[in-house]
Amino acid sequence: MKPPYYAVIFTTRQSTDLEGYDEMAVKMERLAETQKGYLGMDHAREDLGITISYWESLESIANWKAHLEHQKAQALGKSKWYEQYTLRICKVEREYQFPANNT
Amino acid sequence: MKPPYYAVIFTTRQSTDLEGYDEMAVKMERLAETQKGYLGMDHAREDLGITISYWESLESIANWKAHLEHQKAQALGKSKWYEQYTLRICKVEREYQFPANNT
Repeated sequence: MKPPYYAVIFTTRQSTDLEGYDEMAVKMERLAETQKGYLGMDHAREDLGITISYWESLESIANWKAHLEHQKAQALGKSKWYEQYTLRICKVEREYQFPANNT
Repeated sequence: MKPPYYAVIFTTRQSTDLEGYDEMAVKMERLAETQKGYLGMDHAREDLGITISYWESLESIANWKAHLEHQKAQALGKSKWYEQYTLRICKVEREYQFPANNT
């Protein structure tokens, strides 16, 4: 992707009650993919979960945050699935690929 | 951490030859912690590896990139350990904590 664009870094510590979590994670990823301005997502989890979503603009991030289905997921995340999380809104200023992507 | 600060998002696909990788990863994390402007690191790996390091300034990122020991690790990463990676330099504009951190 060609900078500048935006990244939302979401780092999480899960709680012990993960009932319904996996289904919701898949649902939210699918829904995010349909949103205007969505550019992609990276995810990995060990003890810490890291999900990074990439967006064209701050407006597209704000729209996704306000999406009704996503709001429901956010509420369940706070009440049930996450013991702790940090969310960072970032402007991606430079990007390097290896092997070099010259297209 | 209080924005603005910087994040380096390093997403990797490993090769099959990981000889020496784990030792180097530990060594580089320890070394990064001693660098001026270093704020912290998050890491998780499943298929994809994600390492995010946080820094006070673009200057501190440039200094870390140019560190001689780190340069050796970067060369080995390209020649041996990584099949593919993407490195993104980001300005963290906003940060939210749950539970809310009011300190």
